[in-house]
Amino acid sequence: MAKQGKASLKFENAPGIIASACVAGEKEGEGPLGEMIDEIIVDPMAGKNTWEEAESELQKRAAEHALEKAGLPVGRIRYLFAGDLLGQSIASTFGLMKFNVPLFGLYGACSTMGESLSLGASFVNAGYADNVMCVTSSHFASAEKQFRFPLDYGNQRPFAATWTVTGSGAVILSQDGGNVCIKGVTTGKIVDYGIRDSMNMGAAMAPAAADVIYRNFLDFGVDGSYYDHIVTGDLGEVGQRALLDLLQKKNFDISEQHLDCGLMIYNGEEQDTHAGGSGCGCAAVTLCAALLKKLEQKEWRRILFVPTGALLSPTSFNEGQNIPGIAHAVIIERR
Amino acid sequence: MAKQGKASLKFENAPGIIASACVAGEKEGEGPLGEMIDEIIVDPMAGKNTWEEAESELQKRAAEHALEKAGLPVGRIRYLFAGDLLGQSIASTFGLMKFNVPLFGLYGACSTMGESLSLGASFVNAGYADNVMCVTSSHFASAEKQFRFPLDYGNQRPFAATWTVTGSGAVILSQDGGNVCIKGVTTGKIVDYGIRDSMNMGAAMAPAAADVIYRNFLDFGVDGSYYDHIVTGDLGEVGQRALLDLLQKKNFDISEQHLDCGLMIYNGEEQDTHAGGSGCGCAAVTLCAALLKKLEQKEWRRILFVPTGALLSPTSFNEGQNIPGIAHAVIIERR
Repeated sequence: MAKQGKASLKFENAPGIIASACVAGEKEGEGPLGEMIDEIIVDPMAGKNTWEEAESELQKRAAEHALEKAGLPVGRIRYLFAGDLLGQSIASTFGLMKFNVPLFGLYGACSTMGESLSLGASFVNAGYADNVMCVTSSHFASAEKQFRFPLDYGNQRPFAATWTVTGSGAVILSQDGGNVCIKGVTTGKIVDYGIRDSMNMGAAMAPAAADVIYRNFLDFGVDGSYYDHIVTGDLGEVGQRALLDLLQKKNFDISEQHLDCGLMIYNGEEQDTHAGGSGCGCAAVTLCAALLKKLEQKEWRRILFVPTGALLSPTSFNEGQNIPGIAHAVIIERR
Repeated sequence: MAKQGKASLKFENAPGIIASACVAGEKEGEGPLGEMIDEIIVDPMAGKNTWEEAESELQKRAAEHALEKAGLPVGRIRYLFAGDLLGQSIASTFGLMKFNVPLFGLYGACSTMGESLSLGASFVNAGYADNVMCVTSSHFASAEKQFRFPLDYGNQRPFAATWTVTGSGAVILSQDGGNVCIKGVTTGKIVDYGIRDSMNMGAAMAPAAADVIYRNFLDFGVDGSYYDHIVTGDLGEVGQRALLDLLQKKNFDISEQHLDCGLMIYNGEEQDTHAGGSGCGCAAVTLCAALLKKLEQKEWRRILFVPTGALLSPTSFNEGQNIPGIAHAVIIERR
C-alpha cells in the first residue's frame, strides 16, 4: 500500500534517479546555472527549420545525454513519460519518436516535469518497469508563437511577465541505484482563482502550488522544516509573493525554504527577464542542472519539487476563460 | 511483478469497471448506438457560448453520469486521468475542474481513452487508489476549428476523411467489484509511416495499431483468436484495410475479430460520414455505449480495445511534418 493521506503516494521501493541531463539555449547558458547545463545550444533553431523542430531537438539531445550518463542503451528504457507546452505536444512527438520506446504522452503545462516524475516513479515503485525516462521541454520562440505575439512585433512585456526558458531536461528513474531517490508524490488539482492575465502567470499558478504544498504537509504530517527547500517551477517574483501569502493564511510559513526555478535560472535584472523564467523547460533544466546536484553532493538532504502549470490555450484565453493552475509535488531526497 | 513481455503489464488484481457512461450529440444519437448512449445533447453548443465550452460540458456530464451509476460521491475518486484533442487539453481542464480531484492530464490524441485506462488500471492494480475515473471527449466543431477549416467555408470532404464524434465517455475503475475488468495493457510507441494527408488519418494510425496489436500478441503469447473482438478506435474503412494488411504480413489474420469504433458509431452511407467516425470521443462513446455492455451481458468474453491516435497539430501539419500515429491496447474481459 503506497497511499498516503488524501492525495499522496509514499514509495516503499523509492525509485532512484540514476541519471539526469539538460540542454538549453544561449540566454540560459549566460545565467547562473549556465556552467551546470550539459549542453548549450547557441543556435535558437538548433540547426532545424522551425522553432518547433528546434524544441524537439532539445528533447532528443537531453534524452541522449541522460542515456549516455546512465550508460544504458535506449532499449533498457521501458517507458517514456513526456509532454510539452505546444498544442498536441508536438515537441515531444517529433523529439522522442526515434527512440522507439512505449510512450505515455502528458499534458500538465509547465507542471509537466512534476507529472512525469510522479507517474514514472509510481510505475517503477510498482515494479512495472526497471527503468523509465521522464522528459519535457519548452522553447522561448515556439511558446511566444503559440501563446502570445509573433516575435517580429517586438511588443513590450509587462514586468509581471515571465520569460519562457529554451531548454529540456530528462531524468532516468530506476529500481536499483541512484544516490538520490523519489520518496513520494502529491498530485495536484486544477485550482482557479479567476486570473485572466496571460502576462501574469505567476499569480495564476500560485494558488495551485499553495494547494498542493498544503496537501503534501497534511498527507505526510510535516511542515516546511521537513524540507531543505521547497522549489516551485516558475512562479517568478509575483507568484512567489502570492504563494507565501496563501500558505501563511493556512499557518504555514515557508519563506525560509522557498525557492523558485524561475528566479534561479536567470540573473533577472541583467538579463531583462522581468518576473523570472517559465515554461516546462524552466523546472526541468533547473532540476537537472542544479537541484539534483545539490542533493547528490550532500549540500541538501531533501527537497519538495513543485513544478507549476497554467492551464490555458490561445483559444481559451481569447474566448475570455480564466487561467486555472495545477502543480504536482515530488519529494526528492538523498538515500 | 506485473511486467509481461516487452511492452505489456498483466494485472494480478485486475481493476473492475464499476461504472461507465457516455454522452453524445444529435448525429451520434441517430446512429446505430444512439439508444445505448446515456444522454443525447441535441444542442451542439450544449447551452454554452463556444464549442470548446460545449466539449467541456460533455466531459462534465459524462463524468456525472458515471458517478451516479457507480453510486459514488466524487470525493471517493482519488485520481482523474483525462485528456482531449484540443491544444493544451482545454476541454478537460474546464470540464473537470469543478470535481476538485487530483488530475493527471494526458495527451494521446484519439488514443487517449486507451492511455487513460492503461494508467488508471495500473494505479488501481498497484494499490495506489481505490477508485479512479478515466475521461475523454471530442467535438466535431471544436476539432474542425482546431485542425481543419472553419465550418463556415462549407468545404468538401474527401471520402478518406472521417467525421469527428461529438461525445464524451467516462469509466470508473475500482479495486473491488465490476463484472468486467482490465486484465492487462500494451503501451504503444510512436510509429511514423510518412503519411502527410490530414484527410486520411486512418492510414496514418493503422501502422501504430498494427504495431501495438502485434506486440500484445507476442507479449501474451496469443493470437487474434484469444479475443472475441479486437476493436480499434477510429481507423475507418481506409485504415481498417491497412491494419489487416500490415498484420497479415506478420502472419496474423485478425479479419474475423476486427471491429472499429469509427465504423460502429455511424450508419456511414445514410449519415454521410465518409470513412467513419473519429476523435477521442469515438472510442470512448463506443466503449461505454456498446462494447462494455456486450461484455457485461455475456455476449462476449474478452476484447482487445485499441484506441488509435494521429499525432499532429495544426502547426506541425502546416510546417510539412509527417503525421505519426500511436495506439494503446487494453485487455478488457468478463471476470
